[in-house]
Amino acid sequence: MTMATDKGAAKFDVAVVGASGMVGGELLGLLESRDFPVGELYAFNSGRRNAKVRFRGREYDCSAPTFAALKKAGLVFFVSNEEVADRFAPRLAAAGVWCIDDSSRFRLSRGVPLVIPEVNGAEIKPSRKLIAGPNCTITGAAVALAGVHRRFRVTELRVATYQAVSGAGRSAMGVLEEELKGYFRSGSVRRRAASGFPRPIAFNLFPQVGGFDGEGNSGEENKVRAELKKIWDDGSVRISSTAVRVPVLRGHSLAVWFRTRRPASLAALQKELGRTPGLKFFSRPEDYPTPLENGLRTETVYAGRLRRAGTAPGEYQIWIVSDNLYKGAALNSVQIAERIAAL
Amino acid sequence: MTMATDKGAAKFDVAVVGASGMVGGELLGLLESRDFPVGELYAFNSGRRNAKVRFRGREYDCSAPTFAALKKAGLVFFVSNEEVADRFAPRLAAAGVWCIDDSSRFRLSRGVPLVIPEVNGAEIKPSRKLIAGPNCTITGAAVALAGVHRRFRVTELRVATYQAVSGAGRSAMGVLEEELKGYFRSGSVRRRAASGFPRPIAFNLFPQVGGFDGEGNSGEENKVRAELKKIWDDGSVRISSTAVRVPVLRGHSLAVWFRTRRPASLAALQKELGRTPGLKFFSRPEDYPTPLENGLRTETVYAGRLRRAGTAPGEYQIWIVSDNLYKGAALNSVQIAERIAAL
Repeated sequence: MTMATDKGAAKFDVAVVGASGMVGGELLGLLESRDFPVGELYAFNSGRRNAKVRFRGREYDCSAPTFAALKKAGLVFFVSNEEVADRFAPRLAAAGVWCIDDSSRFRLSRGVPLVIPEVNGAEIKPSRKLIAGPNCTITGAAVALAGVHRRFRVTELRVATYQAVSGAGRSAMGVLEEELKGYFRSGSVRRRAASGFPRPIAFNLFPQVGGFDGEGNSGEENKVRAELKKIWDDGSVRISSTAVRVPVLRGHSLAVWFRTRRPASLAALQKELGRTPGLKFFSRPEDYPTPLENGLRTETVYAGRLRRAGTAPGEYQIWIVSDNLYKGAALNSVQIAERIAAL
Repeated sequence: MTMATDKGAAKFDVAVVGASGMVGGELLGLLESRDFPVGELYAFNSGRRNAKVRFRGREYDCSAPTFAALKKAGLVFFVSNEEVADRFAPRLAAAGVWCIDDSSRFRLSRGVPLVIPEVNGAEIKPSRKLIAGPNCTITGAAVALAGVHRRFRVTELRVATYQAVSGAGRSAMGVLEEELKGYFRSGSVRRRAASGFPRPIAFNLFPQVGGFDGEGNSGEENKVRAELKKIWDDGSVRISSTAVRVPVLRGHSLAVWFRTRRPASLAALQKELGRTPGLKFFSRPEDYPTPLENGLRTETVYAGRLRRAGTAPGEYQIWIVSDNLYKGAALNSVQIAERIAAL
């Protein structure tokens, strides 16, 4: 339920589905630190294990979600999987409950806005209660180049990714740490049984995030292409990527090449990047961001190393880093909620 | 000196400058395992520390190189720095001693062949005694796409690199391990003092290999472009790259986009890659190589994930892995020596 407070600001009874997961934990912390107007809080997880979460000094038991329990909230964050979102979000939205889904289930669904508030926050409207947040990998490029795209029209975008293991969940961070510890004990790396990764990740990396389609593209590479076109609302941008998992705990990095329809000078691009919302742009080459330094609980996207590419006329290269759990997931969801609260 | 043996095969008195370094160690191992016809062996290092190396069961003391000492050899491997190569190699070559330099000092010098034997071994001629081996990063692409370039003419090449720390020397491997151990002790990563890297490398990566020029390109990115044009003997290929150091011990990986002048079907490219000398090509998407699995004492370059890129007509993407210390350095030098021996 949404209700007016003494001060006239709306408060939301909030449900978090996936509250005991890694993104759920970050989400609760952000709701608290950003002082989101939470009335009642309801915490849900799969229900397969007992879990408590903390919010504003109080402990909450997590339980398995039901439609009736979720419907008590005015706003539901889904930071769980596609299945759970599929089961509840459309019915809740139809019943008037705001649903912000961080899974990939509805991102490409017609009628569901795919939102990064700084980029396309205007898509948030009371008539569309189900809103999706994008894949954590493309978020950095979508934010960093939003202004450049608006002003100069990006026509070609090539992206090589350097994706942290936390993009695959909390257990994946443990897998990397355990494989490294095994190396320090035994002198060699062995893939943990049931690691969830197709290959060892300690001192290694692999160009596979998700399964492969008939064309040889991975699930992640297809998400990058399809989601960015939707977020930028421009089906004409040509996008290709290689998505690579690297032995980094947190923070996704992107090596990007882009071309624009309208000629852009280096100075004009620097100026545009300097005023792009949600972006911190470093103009000196040696000030580039890195995941360890700029990808841990950071609220902006970082970019640097803008330079001309020698491969095609009007082509540039740029380096982008963002926190895959904050801007790539939990923070973006909270920022969507803040826009809803401000409607 | 070169002398005929009983069997009529030439034997070489061999000097190794940088014998106690990481690449030097790999080089001695390869001379032995590949049964290179070594007569006398002379081992040199900076002379700043006592070091012994082993070769065919015997120990050799390393000493500081002098022209007179080096001139006793018929073939000198330089696996040291540019300064040492500069001081000795041209004079030795002029005096008739074969010099194979793995540093960057002469790679772009006119009259010095820059050689990967499988690609341009025909450049090795008795009239040019000083021969350079290329940068370890570009070697993978130079080998993997040599046949494709010959047949279809590569016009544009974009490369994002994932470079192992051993490309920066043996101490860099220790830096990564120590930073990781520090994390397991303290829970946070700190850059080692005098690590040689501009940023922490444990659970991190950074888009800087070498210093930056006025255009914002790094030294490594400039090497990639200039050296590949020379190796392929084609100044018209347009090349851009982002060179990134990653927390991998050994094995360089490349995410590559390429376009060709002559139209190439996927099948024709697969066929060409399947018969490219020095390359093992995986045609099934899920069989891609990784540095941990394919970058450790491996003699071939590995490639996989060939697919159409959606960014431009006739553009393809491919993933390449090679052992930066073997094919990228020591092995390539030994293969050059084998060609010399076969002249």
